[in-house]
Amino acid sequence: MAAISSISLKTPTKIQSLPKTHYAVPLNLPFSCRSKSKRTGSIGSRTRIRCGLLIEPDGGKLVELFVEESQRELKREDALKLPKIKLTKIDLEWVHVLSEGWASPLKGFMREDEFLQTLHFNSIRLEDGSVVNMSVPIVLAIDDSQKNLIGGSSSVALVDDEYNPIAILSDIEIYKHNKEERIARTWGTTAPGLPYVDEAITHSGNWLVGGDLKVIDPVKYNDGLDRFRLSPAELRDEFTRRNADAVFAFQLRNPVHNGHALLMTDTRRRLLEMGYKNPVLLLHPLGGYTKADDVPLHWRMKQHEKVLEDGVLDPETTVVSIFPSPMHYAGPTEVQWHAKARINAGANFYIVGRDPAGMSHPLDKRDLYDADHGKKVLSMAPGLERLNILPFRVAAYDKTKNGMAFFDPSRPQDFIFISGTKMRTLAKNKESPPDGFMCPGGWKVLVEYYDSLAAADNGRVAEPVPS
Amino acid sequence: MAAISSISLKTPTKIQSLPKTHYAVPLNLPFSCRSKSKRTGSIGSRTRIRCGLLIEPDGGKLVELFVEESQRELKREDALKLPKIKLTKIDLEWVHVLSEGWASPLKGFMREDEFLQTLHFNSIRLEDGSVVNMSVPIVLAIDDSQKNLIGGSSSVALVDDEYNPIAILSDIEIYKHNKEERIARTWGTTAPGLPYVDEAITHSGNWLVGGDLKVIDPVKYNDGLDRFRLSPAELRDEFTRRNADAVFAFQLRNPVHNGHALLMTDTRRRLLEMGYKNPVLLLHPLGGYTKADDVPLHWRMKQHEKVLEDGVLDPETTVVSIFPSPMHYAGPTEVQWHAKARINAGANFYIVGRDPAGMSHPLDKRDLYDADHGKKVLSMAPGLERLNILPFRVAAYDKTKNGMAFFDPSRPQDFIFISGTKMRTLAKNKESPPDGFMCPGGWKVLVEYYDSLAAADNGRVAEPVPS
Repeated sequence: MAAISSISLKTPTKIQSLPKTHYAVPLNLPFSCRSKSKRTGSIGSRTRIRCGLLIEPDGGKLVELFVEESQRELKREDALKLPKIKLTKIDLEWVHVLSEGWASPLKGFMREDEFLQTLHFNSIRLEDGSVVNMSVPIVLAIDDSQKNLIGGSSSVALVDDEYNPIAILSDIEIYKHNKEERIARTWGTTAPGLPYVDEAITHSGNWLVGGDLKVIDPVKYNDGLDRFRLSPAELRDEFTRRNADAVFAFQLRNPVHNGHALLMTDTRRRLLEMGYKNPVLLLHPLGGYTKADDVPLHWRMKQHEKVLEDGVLDPETTVVSIFPSPMHYAGPTEVQWHAKARINAGANFYIVGRDPAGMSHPLDKRDLYDADHGKKVLSMAPGLERLNILPFRVAAYDKTKNGMAFFDPSRPQDFIFISGTKMRTLAKNKESPPDGFMCPGGWKVLVEYYDSLAAADNGRVAEPVPS
Repeated sequence: MAAISSISLKTPTKIQSLPKTHYAVPLNLPFSCRSKSKRTGSIGSRTRIRCGLLIEPDGGKLVELFVEESQRELKREDALKLPKIKLTKIDLEWVHVLSEGWASPLKGFMREDEFLQTLHFNSIRLEDGSVVNMSVPIVLAIDDSQKNLIGGSSSVALVDDEYNPIAILSDIEIYKHNKEERIARTWGTTAPGLPYVDEAITHSGNWLVGGDLKVIDPVKYNDGLDRFRLSPAELRDEFTRRNADAVFAFQLRNPVHNGHALLMTDTRRRLLEMGYKNPVLLLHPLGGYTKADDVPLHWRMKQHEKVLEDGVLDPETTVVSIFPSPMHYAGPTEVQWHAKARINAGANFYIVGRDPAGMSHPLDKRDLYDADHGKKVLSMAPGLERLNILPFRVAAYDKTKNGMAFFDPSRPQDFIFISGTKMRTLAKNKESPPDGFMCPGGWKVLVEYYDSLAAADNGRVAEPVPS
């Protein structure tokens, strides 16, 4: 992942005009900043400096929910005396998300007033009257027996499968988990077959427990990818170290093809044209729960690595990191969460594509969401006024250039659209896409992945580790 | 309805403390105001004065959407040349609602950006960056053939069953009507059997048409009740004429019993204690579409009249009027609409009860909404910060007083709760409720209503007119 050379992509043929709204004035960032490094982390020996000139986190302050190192043993002992709630894999991902401040200013799993505001308004009003965006419920479900176990205790320990304490939730509030209403208001449908619902809601308890979270040890997965899991504070430090005067985030959960690369490169060019001196790209694959037919994180990271090795993006102006959130596939509702979390990591520009966080309707033969609603909702969302929304321009394979280019409606006959489904079918059949669609190394990873699936007994393995 | 005598209700035994939030400073309203009467209306000969000291309408200005009288013939002729959309009964109710400014600052049926903000945020951001509440979609559905009929026309005529032009919708936008998503996000369920959905959405077209509305003639129903249908402007004039320094609204769609009356009287008492000199009650039964098993408007108005004749409420400080909106039964989502519309009519206090706009789940044996969510959501709703929310205190029949009183949890054995279902069962069986539950005249109306139902062939008539 380290070997990233300079830009090799052709300049797009047509200059796209930028949307008129949602642009901030370029920041005049000084070239030296006072170091404010405050904790060691997975970036290793890199110097951490904090200038405070990046976009402010929601609520004005990044809320990290870690127990101080000197207090950890004490808290671990406290936790052993508390009623224990075992976390699922997705619960743990949310603990991770909350603890690092992606959901700032949330201080833990939502209490009912936060849950209701999320469901009804996709935003939360703070005590000072200001509003932050919050579109996806971050909640912890418990069942009747767990509720009984908690009894009158005001705190609970959150533990892993072996009952090791992970975190303490204090000043708790237990309230009803109306699953149907939660699903309907979050997804705009209650059709059976929504992946996150099947995985994390349908069989979960009928109660939710909210409270103030303190995580005893930072969450690690020990899967070889932890070094890519930079927290918002670490990302902010990194952007500051690089003297970024604009940070543009690209959320993805699919393999990167040259159309994506074109878009990212072109975005940087546009930002430079606007007067920014050093726009930095946050290439930010989602690392939490994804549905069974998505390419697993390990394979995606391997594919991204090959694509980057191929020199499509400039390492000096690109930060690759993993966004630890699980995926809801909740379209216009979820894209707000994806954008808001990136504000907390220091991004003031967000690239939004066609049908973000969308999928097919689980029952009907149509997309679940209107392909344009994501960017429309995002551009109007309360609490995201500070974020500059960059709508995704459609890229397609240009036969006259043997490569990906922005679609030119004046000569549609020259373009081929290669859908995700088509890409998957090609890779499964070990066929090659047209030259220039994806770098050969990246494509090889995809073919390997589908090969490994076919090799598995059932034609499917849960999450194969790349060879 | 005119014969209303002075207060006859006993002072409640326990003084309720007011919630600490959501209270405005009492207005110092002068006792004489400059007359600003601008149009004649159904209040008849009463002097209309406008001081501008009531709560401001949403968006700062009450948006009335009437064609000026001098232009009506011209517009009628214009309308005849336009593509025609026939209005359903509920569509017409919305035309009425929009035209009088209950939904200010909406200028007509929602365009897609308003629709999306309503579904996702229950609020709309205005051009100046301020936010108004808007929780219920006010939309006009058309089908494929109507869409084809409109073709490229930028305006359409909205017509009644006999193709008489009612209004013109101009600068139109046609967009997709995703019914499932609309229902899920508005009701928090897609269970079959939601009354408004069955009546107005399921069989409606797959497109929505938004635009700027101009109503040629004010909507009238000629049902003997038009005189009670005061517009927000007329209500504001009336409150100003009465020198109201606080207006508290009570939304209802059920017969009034003495518990309601106690609550309204007690609210006035509390407002006086707070320092207001002349709080005026807006007793505001909903007059649009209601579900089949609700008591029809005519019977309710007759019942209200008897109750008021009984002297429960002071005519000097009570304005009875009909709220023309149709009913969604969408609980916490809808109660925001009920409250917001009353701001536009000049109310700065809103009484909210248990489970407002709620109903039973259409399939499951439970209430569709948590009984407390309505008031919680209302108190947090964006755009309603200016409105003072008055939570409803539970009243029950106090056996020691032979009348309705606020429930005292220290002596539960003294109270009987008489639910709506129980009330209906009693009235159907011509049994009497305990003395003091409802005035005899009002009760008689209910018994008559259920009698008329039983007399009808099928045991049910759609909307019998009171004798």
